[in-house]
Parts: sequence; structure tokens; C-alpha cells
Amino acid sequence: MASKNTFIAIMIGILHIAVPAATANQPNIVIFLADDMGYGDLSSYGHPTQEWGPIDDLAREGLRFTSMYTASSLCSPSRAALLTGRLPVRIGMYGYQMNLTPLSPKGLPDEEITLAEALKDVGYSTGMVGKWHLGINGWIPMDGKYLPYRNGFDYVGTNLPYTNLWSCDESQSHVAKPQSFGCYLYRNATIIQQPFSHENLTRTLVEDAKTFIRQHQTHIEKPFFFYMSFAHVHVSLFSSKEFDGSSKRGMYGDNIREMSWGVGEVMSEIKRLGMDDNTLVLFSSDNGGHSELCNEGGDNGIFRGGKANYFEGGLRVPGIMRWPGHISPGIVSSTVISQMDLFPTLVTMVGGEVPIDRKIDGLNMLSHLPLNISSADDMETTPKPTELDIRPLFFYCNDNLFAVRYGAFKIHYQTMPVKSRLEYGQTDTCLEAGFPTQNYFNCLWCGSFCVEKHDPPLIYNVEADPGETYPLNPKLYGDLLADLSDVVNKHKAGLEPGDPIFSSFAPSSIPCCNPDNPGCSCNYP
Amino acid sequence: MASKNTFIAIMIGILHIAVPAATANQPNIVIFLADDMGYGDLSSYGHPTQEWGPIDDLAREGLRFTSMYTASSLCSPSRAALLTGRLPVRIGMYGYQMNLTPLSPKGLPDEEITLAEALKDVGYSTGMVGKWHLGINGWIPMDGKYLPYRNGFDYVGTNLPYTNLWSCDESQSHVAKPQSFGCYLYRNATIIQQPFSHENLTRTLVEDAKTFIRQHQTHIEKPFFFYMSFAHVHVSLFSSKEFDGSSKRGMYGDNIREMSWGVGEVMSEIKRLGMDDNTLVLFSSDNGGHSELCNEGGDNGIFRGGKANYFEGGLRVPGIMRWPGHISPGIVSSTVISQMDLFPTLVTMVGGEVPIDRKIDGLNMLSHLPLNISSADDMETTPKPTELDIRPLFFYCNDNLFAVRYGAFKIHYQTMPVKSRLEYGQTDTCLEAGFPTQNYFNCLWCGSFCVEKHDPPLIYNVEADPGETYPLNPKLYGDLLADLSDVVNKHKAGLEPGDPIFSSFAPSSIPCCNPDNPGCSCNYP
Repeated sequence: MASKNTFIAIMIGILHIAVPAATANQPNIVIFLADDMGYGDLSSYGHPTQEWGPIDDLAREGLRFTSMYTASSLCSPSRAALLTGRLPVRIGMYGYQMNLTPLSPKGLPDEEITLAEALKDVGYSTGMVGKWHLGINGWIPMDGKYLPYRNGFDYVGTNLPYTNLWSCDESQSHVAKPQSFGCYLYRNATIIQQPFSHENLTRTLVEDAKTFIRQHQTHIEKPFFFYMSFAHVHVSLFSSKEFDGSSKRGMYGDNIREMSWGVGEVMSEIKRLGMDDNTLVLFSSDNGGHSELCNEGGDNGIFRGGKANYFEGGLRVPGIMRWPGHISPGIVSSTVISQMDLFPTLVTMVGGEVPIDRKIDGLNMLSHLPLNISSADDMETTPKPTELDIRPLFFYCNDNLFAVRYGAFKIHYQTMPVKSRLEYGQTDTCLEAGFPTQNYFNCLWCGSFCVEKHDPPLIYNVEADPGETYPLNPKLYGDLLADLSDVVNKHKAGLEPGDPIFSSFAPSSIPCCNPDNPGCSCNYP
Repeated sequence: MASKNTFIAIMIGILHIAVPAATANQPNIVIFLADDMGYGDLSSYGHPTQEWGPIDDLAREGLRFTSMYTASSLCSPSRAALLTGRLPVRIGMYGYQMNLTPLSPKGLPDEEITLAEALKDVGYSTGMVGKWHLGINGWIPMDGKYLPYRNGFDYVGTNLPYTNLWSCDESQSHVAKPQSFGCYLYRNATIIQQPFSHENLTRTLVEDAKTFIRQHQTHIEKPFFFYMSFAHVHVSLFSSKEFDGSSKRGMYGDNIREMSWGVGEVMSEIKRLGMDDNTLVLFSSDNGGHSELCNEGGDNGIFRGGKANYFEGGLRVPGIMRWPGHISPGIVSSTVISQMDLFPTLVTMVGGEVPIDRKIDGLNMLSHLPLNISSADDMETTPKPTELDIRPLFFYCNDNLFAVRYGAFKIHYQTMPVKSRLEYGQTDTCLEAGFPTQNYFNCLWCGSFCVEKHDPPLIYNVEADPGETYPLNPKLYGDLLADLSDVVNKHKAGLEPGDPIFSSFAPSSIPCCNPDNPGCSCNYP
């Protein structure tokens, strides 16, 4: 039973562990975030042909969550929630468009406190590379008002302030040539390539990450937070030459292998510098895989749906946490975790203060997680549900409450149509006719064309039926629905939606590195 | 790279390893076999809510195969192939009925050589408990002609010579009371309970297994082979009181937990007796999960179909191999393995002779497996395909060739209809109306009602598309089909189907412990 207490010891008694003082209370923190990777995409999460890689090693050496939820099944809202611990609707991360786009003159509001800002307040050095997607310019052309450096990141290496995209495709299989609109590569606040080349992109992110980490080796008294946000595995797929054809699974598998290689490179650097034991590493994805894209989209395992809808396939993501000496290797936990929990958990853990002037929707896992997690040798025991397992998790599409995870149950008030794998898979050519039909139904305005309201709501027991296949008879769950109704009413009474950020448009906000050039392209290596 | 060679060392250089002589060449061998458990049912294979248990520990401490195939998606043919290394059609394991039933006056033919017989020939003590399903009586009532003791097992503890069944249900949810026809519990060759009680069944199997193992502790110079064939997780589901309600996943999860507990008990006994390092342990299932049974059937992960059909869900099963000091912990391999490979591999490994007077369809993995398997730290490398990966695996429904796994491809000449998860899952009550609609279409006689012929055949790349979702355009795979056509013709030229065992019926063969009692029931505790 001693081993059972290992994680308890770290999490609640972290001050008492005999490692160098400067890092015991304040470990380095690295968050690796994949883009659009599904729950079932990794070997460690059960994919039968995806090759094992350094990401899976994190799971083998640490803790693998099987019930980690994103706050949204789309990029911008999900990422905003991860970095602030707050529901997207509260922040204003919704609106006429369903994501931030190049046309947005808005982004993550200044008054929001990001994880980087909160960690900086307690002495952390902060850095990031890769995809941002939380805003670029304000109303003034190229003012960079919403870029990462405005949100608590001291160091901002090579980054995509928007995202990787179909229109950035260089392979000519989806677009004739990469387009300038939408395809920006920045270094900190400056465009360095428009449209950008995928070649060497991941390598560059990795080099920047290593540089940041090396610079902080000399400041061991000053811990760091690094946010490594990959362009992989969002379409258009891409990989460097050394990964082309490296996966049995094909192009998508090559993408995962390159991303996993990147994780391995960063981990090697951390180990080489002797910082391994003092570094808490997290790996996750911003939302589920894009199941409509045939083999170019991710695999959501046994879960229904995927990106852009509110079944489990869109919301349940891989979640891995590694911290040698603190988290026993090989632990698997089905405790319900929201990515919004990371903000209060990490901030509290390192001695920071969680803001009290605003609602933080995530919970501090510190006092709950250990009760439900044991060492690998002790996993056979049945964990008792904790506060994390019984709290409601609210899922909004724009400002409409679509679904709630509540205890063992998932309750859908509204749904959008999803198809099964077999309905999509008629041929292997579903992408050849051009862009696929997207399931990006915008629940804000498309009405009954795409939104089905359920009264009584659809109820699934997602512990017994994680695939959301067998709806329960609502007549038998009257107490649950009444109870939940109170919970929802209370939640809504305390909810003041932010101004809808995605409803503003300003062509002047579109990034352009070279306004004199009609094609608006540049390349500053 | 040294670690990469660990498995090579054991497998090909096993004679040279410095462990006690009596066991280095001839380790104890334990095969745990589950009934109808799906590929996706275990936590270690990615199930999100099934609790981690001792079966998963085997994977954590050993090798987890992601491409292990059964020879058939039904019990009797699959089990016959596992124990003989031969295709079911060759043995005669097919016919009018699709499995052995209580009415069968036939079983595994005497002239077949089982793994138990082959291991006995080189000095092994052999034992088994649990489900048999390879025959009971011949034409003479209660002659026990096909029971385990006639097939090389010295010790036969508590066993189900037939199987667990819907009609054995004691919960009254599917039948009013357990029925004598079909529900037999034997001890060696004697019926001890008809119909049998599920209560204590698993505990009894475990106690018998421990007894056998303890008895062989004193004969360390004489290694043992033990075949522990669980009644779990075939319907009707059952679990002992201490496991009722123990799983988040419900009744099916309780069943897995009880089975996993049983594995853990046997492993503890092996460890307690100091035989851990000298014992090679395998875990697998006889076929995929029964996907039509809602939450009472198994989960086949991302694979299509399940029990009784020939998509991957019916054929791909968990496959775990553990041997401390010989197999590095935490290895995952996607090498294509057939359960038929176990016979030639194990027999050769322990110095036995693989019969040369008959075709053995499995391959000896010894010289191939190591090339494709490395230590856990080395799994990132891309393994080269071995002979195991490129050989054809033929899948018959009765004596009709339905499908072939050939390299990266799965080719279907004939299919039976399967539904997606969502098509079955309309309500949570799919079992309440009585027995569910089975997919047990008998391809021998139901014709076009259930069998669809494909000319050209259906082709899937099951490395890129393990879910068999995107059929490839046969016009682009002419070379593959021509090549395969040669392979199939050569195979068929060398195939002499056995007499169809499942086509004989004899009411006199039905086991009955007490012919004077019209209900034919008994209970000898």
C-alpha cells in the first residue's frame, strides 16, 4: 500500500519531498499539445498499427488518463479554456464563426489570465512555440494585439498564430498551391513566411524548444513553463522527408511519428540537462479527430463523433502526465479530468494564486486526484469517485448548452448529426473530389437543419457505454434529470457569457507581411 | 541496442541462457484463454472504463500483440486450431452446424496432435481446467470419447466440456431457469453438476489451477503446460458476489474483473512458488466479441464486425506473452501472429518435434519474431516485415474461403452482413425482448440470404485502415489480386478438407448425468 500513496505524497505533500528546493515546489512544466488528434490515435491508447513512439513512452513512464475532456470540440475555444481554466462561453470564445479566423479583429481578451501569466507571477520563465489560434491582430492592421507575447509568454519562438490548414497544402492533392490567406509563420510577433512551408517546420519548433530549455538550464533557481503546441496532426497533413512513408498507417501515421519524434527530442534535451526529475510533462490534444476526413483524419477509438460535435469523440482526448519520482510509471486512471483543471491545479501547486475575482471552471485536482490514483501495482482496486468524477462538465456549442457530463452520465440537450465510420467509408477516395463535406454545422444560426433538440434529453451512461450507443429511457431517470436541472439552472444563473468574439469581422485584421505585394507573400528565412 | 537483442536471445538462443537447466529449455507454459472477449475489452488495449487488472499487468510486464488472429471467429474451430496449429477446415471443424453442440457425436479427431500431446512427448506434465468445446461423447452414450483427458491432458480439473450458454443463465433475465441441455460441469470425465451454477465457478477453476501448479512445484525437473480456459466472458454473463457491481462498465466489466482476478491468483501462486522466471504465460481470446449483444457483448475496439463473421472484429484478439527475463516489459508489436503459430513455436522451443506427416498451418515464430521485436526502449524503430507478416492467413467459414490476410491487405471473397454499433444501439433494451438477433448466419446453407460474394473481391489495407472502412479500388490492385490468386490456388491444391464434424447429429450423445431423471439434472458437490 505504500506505493498507493506515492502520488498522494507528491500532490498534497509536495513541499516535503527531498529534491532541490528551487524545483520541488516549482517543477518545470511542459505542455505538449497536438492539434485535432483523436483519442484512439496512439499505440498507448490502443491503436493497432500506429507505431509506438516517444509520446507513448510518456504514458509508459507516467499516468495515462482515459477520461480527459477538452472544453470544446473546436480549436480556439478549447485552447482558450486550457490556458485560462474557464469555459469558452464565459470568455466570449464563440460567435457567428465557430473559431477565430484571419478575419477576426479580436482574440483572447486582455483581462483573461493565462497559465503563462499566472506562472510568471510566481517566478516562472515562460515560452511557447507552434500553433496559437487565440487571436492575431486587433482592429489596427498588424498591431499583433492578441499574439502570445501579449499573453504571458516571455519567449515566443517559431509559431503559427492561426493554424495549419487545408489551404496551406503543398502536396497539391488538395489545393493547387499554398495560399497566403491563413498560412502564416511567425517568429514571436513578426511574420517570417507567408504562406509557410511545412518542410522543416517541426524541426524548427523542436530547435526553438531546445534553445529555450538550454537557456533555462543556467537558471535552475528559476523554473520554466513551456507550451509546445504542434501544427500536427491538423490537415493538411505534412511530414518531413525522413518521416514520409515511415508508418504502416500511412500519411496520418507519418504525421504522428514526426510529432512523437519532436516530443522525444525535447524529452532527450531535458534528460541530457539533468532536469528530468524536476519537470512535469503533460501531453494532450485540443479536440477529437476529424472523423470525416477518411484516413487523413484522426481516430477517435470507440467513441462516437469527433471534432466539431459534442459526442465523446469530439471531447475525449489523450491525456498523459509524467513526472519521474512523483508519478508512478504505468498508471491508468479513468478519473474525469477537464483540461480546465490544469490551470487551478498547476497554479496552486507551484504556490501561485488562483484569481478570485472571476469564475474558474476547472477544479484543483490536488486534493482529489490522489484519492483516485494509485501506483501501477495497485490499480486493481476500485477507486472511489471523487469530486472530479461527480462535478458537472458543461459543453457548449457557441452559447448553447449542448451536453453535460455528470457522474457516469452524459446528457445531450441538443445534438448535431454524426455518421458512423461505415457511413463515411464507401470508398478510399472520399477526399479526391476536393475538400470533404465538413461537419462544421454552426449551431448558432443553422437551426433545425443541423441542430436536433432533445426534450427529454438523450441520456447515456458513458461508463458502461462509452460509445454513446444505447440511449437510456428518460422515464427511468427522472431523479437524475431533476437533479441535473437544478445543477444547470444554478450554473446558468452564475454564467455571464462574454461578448461573442467570433462575431466580429475586419478585413484589415488579415495578416499580411508585404502589403505592396498583391499576393501578400514573403519568405525571410 | 543490447536490449533489442533480448528477445532474440531467448527465442533463438534459448539453450544458452543461464537459468536452471531443467527449465531454461523447457519453461512452464500457461495459456489463459478467454471466451468471446473482444480486442477492445481490456484497459491495456485501450478500453476507457474497463478497470486495469492482472491481465493488463501481463501486458505491462511482457509483450502485447496488436495483430494476433484467431483461425476462426467461432469457438470450436478456433480452439481446435489453437491446440493443433492447423486450419479448422483441414481438421474437419466445420459442417451443418457451425460449432460443436450437445448433439454432436464427434469432436477433435483422435489422429490430431494437440499441444498437450506434443508437450507431453518431451516430458511435460499437462493440465487444464474450464471450457473445452472440442467434443464430449461419441456415438455411444457417455463414452467421453472426445474429452480433454483423451487429448493429452494428464490432469483435468473442473471443466465445461461444452460451454457457458444463454440457457445456463441463473439470473432469470434471459431464461426462467437454467436448463440441463447444454449446461454441464465436469470434473475430468465425470459430470458433477447439471445444469451448473455460476456461483464459485471461477473460484473453483482457480483452486484447481493452483493445486495443479503446487503439485508440480516438487517436480521442478518436469515442466508443466497448463491450459486455463475461462467460462468468462461468453453469455450468459455471470460473476461471483464480490465482483457484482465492481466495474464502472457494468455486468460485462464485472465479468472481466473476475476473470482477471483469476489470472492474478494463478500468477501469484506461480510467483509464490518461485517459478515466475521459468514460466512463459500467454493470454488470448478464442474469437472477437459478440457485438450484437449490446452491453452484454464484448467490445472489438475500432474493428468492424465481431464474433461469427470475418471482419477484423471477429478475428483480431488480444494476445499477450510474458516471460520475465526473456521478454522485455512493455513491448508492443504489430507483427502478424496467428494463434496457429503457437503450436510449432512452443513445440520447437522446448525441443519437441513438429509432426511432418501433416500440414501445420502455423509458422514457427522463433526465427522471425525477434527480427520484428525490440525492447520497449527501442520500439520507435520501424520493424521490417518478417515472414510472419507476409504469409497469407486464410479464413474459412465452414469450408468456404471467405477472406485472406495477406501482407498489409485483407481480401474478402465473401462477406456476411454486419451492422455498425450505431445501427444496433437504438435503445438500451436490445436484450429485453429475449434473445437477441444473432449474426450466426450459416454460410454453408443460407446462400445469398446471408452471403454476399465479391468478384472482384473487397480489398482493405488493414494497416492503414484497420477498421476495414475504405475499400480499395480493385482496378488499382490487379497485381496484388493476381499474386494472391496464385497463392490461393496453391493453398487449395494442398488442402484436403476433413470430414465435416459439425454435420453429424445423435441425440444419444447428449450428456446426461442421471438418465432416470426426466430433467436430467444432478449436483455432486
